[in-house]
Amino acid sequence: MKSNKIDHIGIAVKDAKERLKLYKDFLGLEVSGEEELPERGLKVYFVKIGETRFELLEPLNENSEISSFLEKKGEGIHHVAINVSGIDEAVELAKNLGFKPLSDEPKKGAGGTKVLFLHPKTTGGVLLELVEGNH
Amino acid sequence: MKSNKIDHIGIAVKDAKERLKLYKDFLGLEVSGEEELPERGLKVYFVKIGETRFELLEPLNENSEISSFLEKKGEGIHHVAINVSGIDEAVELAKNLGFKPLSDEPKKGAGGTKVLFLHPKTTGGVLLELVEGNH
Repeated sequence: MKSNKIDHIGIAVKDAKERLKLYKDFLGLEVSGEEELPERGLKVYFVKIGETRFELLEPLNENSEISSFLEKKGEGIHHVAINVSGIDEAVELAKNLGFKPLSDEPKKGAGGTKVLFLHPKTTGGVLLELVEGNH
Repeated sequence: MKSNKIDHIGIAVKDAKERLKLYKDFLGLEVSGEEELPERGLKVYFVKIGETRFELLEPLNENSEISSFLEKKGEGIHHVAINVSGIDEAVELAKNLGFKPLSDEPKKGAGGTKVLFLHPKTTGGVLLELVEGNH
């Protein structure tokens, strides 16, 4: 497996319109897109910076993928995603090194990508996502 | 002020040698340097990825800059730093928008850089560092 770049930094927010002030008005960055993902209970705002982007994750309901994070830890950095080549090797490599994948194999992500998460309890508190492909 | 790219992602760790396995052995990244900063109580390991890098922050003693974070929140992502141009405008701009700078003006950072932090209570839980210059 090869790591190419930071794909994105996921930020859990309660009110994206309010939080976008930091990225747009203060940092002067551009919102390059937004997307509703009802099956994950999320609305996502993409903010491009250099070769990577921030993804602001806003809950659509109280059962969203980030609701329990928001309740326990509050708003803030939720995960870091790495763009990789060779993600199919990742599950076995992770297990051999003592990191716990959150699925038995990479799952389908947005736009035909493959994604895999590692459990933060095994990585020093970092929820790490691997992404293969571009979206 | 203009934002150019993610300068680095700071990760609080208790034992960098142990945590570097994720970045070196799993992600296949290279440790591009390490530095002791006794005045901040830190040893820092730099791991290059694309145009940016991870910085693993390990405490040298229990009064280090990250000791209270480690005690309260445990290991994990500590801050995100943005490489900017025009950092001298940042303090006034931040105050006008309701973000709280942690100093009255940018401070001297490593290698002749200027740095400024924003309080995470005002940014949606994200400890944001601005960096002007390269180090």
